[in-house]
Amino acid sequence: MAKANEYFLRLSSGYLFPEIARRAALWQEKHPGVKLLKLGIGNTTEPITPHIAKKMREKIDALENRNTYTGYGDEQGDTPLRKAIAELYGREYGVSIDPLEVFVSDGAKSDAANIQEIFSEDSVVAVQDPAYPVYVDSNVASGRGGFYDEKKGLYDRLIYMPASEKDNFIPHPPKEHVDLIYLCFPNNPTGAVISKERLREFVEYAKREKAVIIYDAAYSDYIREEGYPHTIYEIEGAKDVAIEINSFSKNAGFTGVRLGWSIVPFSIKAESAPDGTIHRLWNRRQTTFFNGASNIAQAGGIAALSEEGRLECKGLVDYYLENARIIREGLEASGLRVFGGVNSPYVWAKCPEGLRSWEFFDLLIDKAHVIVTPGSGFGAAGEGYVRVSAYGHREDVIKAVESIRENLK
Amino acid sequence: MAKANEYFLRLSSGYLFPEIARRAALWQEKHPGVKLLKLGIGNTTEPITPHIAKKMREKIDALENRNTYTGYGDEQGDTPLRKAIAELYGREYGVSIDPLEVFVSDGAKSDAANIQEIFSEDSVVAVQDPAYPVYVDSNVASGRGGFYDEKKGLYDRLIYMPASEKDNFIPHPPKEHVDLIYLCFPNNPTGAVISKERLREFVEYAKREKAVIIYDAAYSDYIREEGYPHTIYEIEGAKDVAIEINSFSKNAGFTGVRLGWSIVPFSIKAESAPDGTIHRLWNRRQTTFFNGASNIAQAGGIAALSEEGRLECKGLVDYYLENARIIREGLEASGLRVFGGVNSPYVWAKCPEGLRSWEFFDLLIDKAHVIVTPGSGFGAAGEGYVRVSAYGHREDVIKAVESIRENLK
Repeated sequence: MAKANEYFLRLSSGYLFPEIARRAALWQEKHPGVKLLKLGIGNTTEPITPHIAKKMREKIDALENRNTYTGYGDEQGDTPLRKAIAELYGREYGVSIDPLEVFVSDGAKSDAANIQEIFSEDSVVAVQDPAYPVYVDSNVASGRGGFYDEKKGLYDRLIYMPASEKDNFIPHPPKEHVDLIYLCFPNNPTGAVISKERLREFVEYAKREKAVIIYDAAYSDYIREEGYPHTIYEIEGAKDVAIEINSFSKNAGFTGVRLGWSIVPFSIKAESAPDGTIHRLWNRRQTTFFNGASNIAQAGGIAALSEEGRLECKGLVDYYLENARIIREGLEASGLRVFGGVNSPYVWAKCPEGLRSWEFFDLLIDKAHVIVTPGSGFGAAGEGYVRVSAYGHREDVIKAVESIRENLK
Repeated sequence: MAKANEYFLRLSSGYLFPEIARRAALWQEKHPGVKLLKLGIGNTTEPITPHIAKKMREKIDALENRNTYTGYGDEQGDTPLRKAIAELYGREYGVSIDPLEVFVSDGAKSDAANIQEIFSEDSVVAVQDPAYPVYVDSNVASGRGGFYDEKKGLYDRLIYMPASEKDNFIPHPPKEHVDLIYLCFPNNPTGAVISKERLREFVEYAKREKAVIIYDAAYSDYIREEGYPHTIYEIEGAKDVAIEINSFSKNAGFTGVRLGWSIVPFSIKAESAPDGTIHRLWNRRQTTFFNGASNIAQAGGIAALSEEGRLECKGLVDYYLENARIIREGLEASGLRVFGGVNSPYVWAKCPEGLRSWEFFDLLIDKAHVIVTPGSGFGAAGEGYVRVSAYGHREDVIKAVESIRENLK
């Protein structure tokens, strides 16, 4: 009999966000007519901006014309987009990236999930705790997680780097040897940003241990305070040890349009890799398992990286950061302890009175009709917190924050 | 030191199409000014049709409007599209599919490559020979292929189902037990179509052996002769044993727009699967590793399945089928033995005078400046053939066929 991949059985529960949707739908069923206010999923709500929309429409015009129609593009992405992404790193961060080191994808989630495929199944993997579930789940489903310990809320083969309040939610490199390290800054879910000094510790660790860092910078455009690195490549030597993943989802509103990229530098080495480096390996993976991102989305991506597009995206990010400020101040006024939300669209709030994450989740739905994301869904160290997302129309965010202020006392 | 996935090292060579592109570029470098005529990659050349283009533009308008903007959709695809796909099966093939059995993806290649992930690493896999390289490569890279035997041109853990001329390029089910069977009809590369009787043999085999069939029907709209199944679900009992993959690439010209789907019926069972079935497993895989196809592409997909869209797509397929007729007849007139190209965009031509596939490839470039695809790139049994693709502007196809007729004598 055909047999399932048993590693999938080791996944502790369903993917977090469908689970929240399920609970919300259940609650809604019991309370028809009540409008739920959503600060849960990090789902953008503001429209695609004019210049980007125009360029995507023009791409469709071109596809409708026999002389300008194109079919398959390169699996790695269209050359003008790869160039535009490389130029972004040079222009805005002073970092040199070769366009051939850029791999365009259908979004950061896919890359974050798939990148593990090019590494050995016996790799030891370190993750931040709490963390975006995809890093953990993709490794568990591929055999690197071991078994889930219900009591601890941890997988027994993963190395967790807990981020605690006293460390401002910035973890330290592992004490033991690991092969792969997943980092995400500005962090989802805590909203924490890492300084260059603290990030340097990870790069040094990776050099020493010959480990590879997978750096998820999907929220880098939300960094507005000085001194924080927008890309890990601002740290010297990072190009020898770090893959960086980024996305058009949260700055251009492409959550549904789907477009992202990964930088896989030529210089990262790995044992047993075809020519000793992993660049060729990821190239092989992408050309074999993927057929390129949608050409319409890619036209949008090129537009988003133009001068006009960057300005429009800055406007979008400003909007969500203003939402984050409203949430942060509103929750503080409600007596909650809050973190993040300054260089990040996520506010990380401590549950009051020792409540557990899902208990506070239930309380917020019941009392304030507001949906947030339980911190424990991001890992054991997220227990006792909830993530509040700044993605929403301004008036809805204000309504939700007011509802919490009025009903949480 | 971080270690690469060693299974990738077992891949016998680069992905076929980049390799062809590399050789063509090399030739072009040595012969500047000579125009190469391309009948190689199955890459669509005719524009997106008016109704579909219009609906995609309208989707962008909607995304540009604050009241109609949407972000993340369901990972499994937008409900209206899943419904439209299910309805297609009912309306055109008399087959009952639940919309929840439909998983929308960014294309058939991704699904064909990723589907193996939900099965156990020790699964025994059968593939047609020759076959679209993705079935083989995705399984080799995931540890199910074993080692490549250079002499035989075969992986030692895969079970090959050779398709030979005397069988009209339709293989027989394996003699031994296997867990997974990849089938593709109309076949890429041979252009062969399978009858209901012959397909029933595979369904019966799968029932008997409790195997799962992965049926790639990406070219089903090219079937124009009566009596051939457009979907494997036309065979009784197939819903208990077969996953079907399909695509908008070759009928709506979405090779660059990227959109496909898989049908994963509720009723397919597998050992160790969460509830004994693989539907939930694929759902978990897609929600964890994927974030939905581009919403603009999905709007195009819905349009393509409307009455107007189906008519437009039929027109596109007609165009390529007429190209295929021209190729078939032209090659025959050049004295070549040809197959396929009637219910398929691919003509499968026997190399003359005992030439090997890459030799004939080189000869066609050198003498006729025409690029085809060497049959051996699709597997050992493809040796001695080339695949000639009907994707091209009519005038280019005519030119290429004439060039072969004039220069091959």
